[in-house]
Amino acid sequence: MKIEINPDRLLSELRHLATFGAYRTGVHRPTFSPQDMEARGWIVERMRAVGLEPELDGIGNILGRAPNARRRLLLGSHTDSQNHAGWLDGAMGVVFALEIARAVAEIGDSDVAVEPVDWADEEAHFASFLGSRSAIGELPEAEVDAARCATTGIPLRDALAAAGLAGRPRFQIDPSRYLGYLEAHIEQGDYLEANDLSLGVVTSIVGIWQYRITVRGQRNHAGTTRMAIRKDAGAAAVKLLHRIDARFRELGAERTVWTVGNIRLEPGQVSIIPDLAEVMLQVRDADEAVLARLDAALREMVGEADVAGPCRITLELESRSDPHRMSPNLQNALEASAEDLAPGNVVRMPSGAGHDAQILAKIMPAGMIFVPSIGGISHHWDENTSDEDIILGCQALAGACARLLWEPAG
Amino acid sequence: MKIEINPDRLLSELRHLATFGAYRTGVHRPTFSPQDMEARGWIVERMRAVGLEPELDGIGNILGRAPNARRRLLLGSHTDSQNHAGWLDGAMGVVFALEIARAVAEIGDSDVAVEPVDWADEEAHFASFLGSRSAIGELPEAEVDAARCATTGIPLRDALAAAGLAGRPRFQIDPSRYLGYLEAHIEQGDYLEANDLSLGVVTSIVGIWQYRITVRGQRNHAGTTRMAIRKDAGAAAVKLLHRIDARFRELGAERTVWTVGNIRLEPGQVSIIPDLAEVMLQVRDADEAVLARLDAALREMVGEADVAGPCRITLELESRSDPHRMSPNLQNALEASAEDLAPGNVVRMPSGAGHDAQILAKIMPAGMIFVPSIGGISHHWDENTSDEDIILGCQALAGACARLLWEPAG
Repeated sequence: MKIEINPDRLLSELRHLATFGAYRTGVHRPTFSPQDMEARGWIVERMRAVGLEPELDGIGNILGRAPNARRRLLLGSHTDSQNHAGWLDGAMGVVFALEIARAVAEIGDSDVAVEPVDWADEEAHFASFLGSRSAIGELPEAEVDAARCATTGIPLRDALAAAGLAGRPRFQIDPSRYLGYLEAHIEQGDYLEANDLSLGVVTSIVGIWQYRITVRGQRNHAGTTRMAIRKDAGAAAVKLLHRIDARFRELGAERTVWTVGNIRLEPGQVSIIPDLAEVMLQVRDADEAVLARLDAALREMVGEADVAGPCRITLELESRSDPHRMSPNLQNALEASAEDLAPGNVVRMPSGAGHDAQILAKIMPAGMIFVPSIGGISHHWDENTSDEDIILGCQALAGACARLLWEPAG
Repeated sequence: MKIEINPDRLLSELRHLATFGAYRTGVHRPTFSPQDMEARGWIVERMRAVGLEPELDGIGNILGRAPNARRRLLLGSHTDSQNHAGWLDGAMGVVFALEIARAVAEIGDSDVAVEPVDWADEEAHFASFLGSRSAIGELPEAEVDAARCATTGIPLRDALAAAGLAGRPRFQIDPSRYLGYLEAHIEQGDYLEANDLSLGVVTSIVGIWQYRITVRGQRNHAGTTRMAIRKDAGAAAVKLLHRIDARFRELGAERTVWTVGNIRLEPGQVSIIPDLAEVMLQVRDADEAVLARLDAALREMVGEADVAGPCRITLELESRSDPHRMSPNLQNALEASAEDLAPGNVVRMPSGAGHDAQILAKIMPAGMIFVPSIGGISHHWDENTSDEDIILGCQALAGACARLLWEPAG
């Protein structure tokens, strides 16, 4: 059996979705904002038009159920966005799911179905993987009570109420209903483009270990305090970060990445020696052993710098998400379908970004497919992918779905 | 003639002034705040009690005039403070001026007088040396129109109106009325304390060259963007700052100081590679040649880093104040008086901090005397000086005034 997607319909829906919260060449559709809720309303409508039974739940997730099917796949991603970001991140995966669900419905085999899903807040405006964690039973009410928007500080409960979601139940995904979960996404990096490849089959989603380095010095006058007696928290942070960078370059693996996303000095005034430097450091790799090696080196460097003085330096591992392997069976189906369509232009690769698929992987087989990002740009309104690559990505995902829904597992 | 100050009265007034805007062990008395204006009201009263004619002018300066004297000295400093700062910075110099003016008045020689002055905003909440520049004719109305509070963003005009100063004239200091300007201040560094000295006679006030370094990279996803293709503005800033620090250590003179008071990354989020880093760098030295040498090295390093890539880096000299020499005649008077009171415990030294004296030095002879700062702490509520050192400082300043007012210039 072949699932025939309609490329024009696909592109047209994708462009329509980008009109909700349009911002420059991208979108600004933060979770539970009016523009996000309008987009969700439209997704609910589209699911209903496919003949599915959509449910918008108490955390903003939308699931389009096909209650009578016997073999089902769950397909999706998220339609909310980072602030002032790109039009494809998340949105493409949801529109693929809609298009493939429709194409499957058009075949008229009532035994099989693709159920599209739109997860809330993958981008962590309120909390990481808010929606998908809720759906696998890993979002306690206490966390919903405590969460606030990272940008505005608005409590999650207030945002849910303003979005009209207060009081609605949160649905739970029953893994026994599905053969697995598939998610298509833009790569968000330049690996496919740089290697002239069209499709990436994700082998695993990288682990992310996130640290806070706190340097405490002594606030003092920037003119009258001799260099020799300063306890300059900013200068100590610069020295340490320089060392970390050099050491990580020696110890990291081929695709290890590390990022200092923020440095904050207090009081941050030009004539005052800072007494506090706070550094956010994040390390990602698909191999837990690599993460552990860098962690050990980091602890050693921070410890040495603290002992050497003159500032006190502490390190906290603020959050740790370990690498998540994608299902070998789903990887095989995705690769076979991709190779059919673009022979020799397919690669297996880790995902450097986190995705809802890593949450779903905890309860069912999960797989992901990547399309190229032009210039590797992501989390920016300049993010884009060629129409050709978007269509190919959807066709490859549809092909994998056909293999899984109609062919006995190999 | 000897000017006999009253130590108890001096300390008691100093402690009373610290009650306006008391904050922890220090004060929070930002320029034109209600607590600052209350303190100014009290200063006006104290001047009147000495028999002077006080004027609070349209920029917040207060001058206590003695219209009938023939030989006058101008003495002062500022009573407003940095945010959440110490009780002596500025305040001590004004209270010394009040006490000495009173002690001079008590002598009953109507030919001589000390006129106390309290300058507005030496700490640059709105603009550097706002009050003293106004008084020497170097504060154009256009600058008053444009200035805003660095902390709150409130326009200076609004702050003046809220403080009840709108519409008042700004007074100009006529240099022909004075033999010179003298200012006492805490050292704000640890040089006197570390060398067991009681008094410092200031030879010059350091020049301050202040720079903004702007690093522009490319915003991208912190997980999917390989290290090799990143244009990480934060990482580039750290690398450059590390190099600047090492090079300045080679090139600086004995008392050169440099400070990175702030580093700001954009967007400042843990999962996004920053596309902008803004660094505030300040260099101080008493010798213009040293400042020029460091400036040349800085330009070279920034230029090299910009050419090397991957980020674009620019350097702006945001403000430049060159070293200001204090009057040799006033230095001699201060040193002779200080040596009388504390033989062998006096040193001539540069001031690492800027002071209103450098502004007054443009129109008349100016001199400064320093008392020790405990632990060298300044711009912090822990700032302090022993009562003994405070009293000695005031006596030494009084002695210098006596020499200048009653003895023919040497």
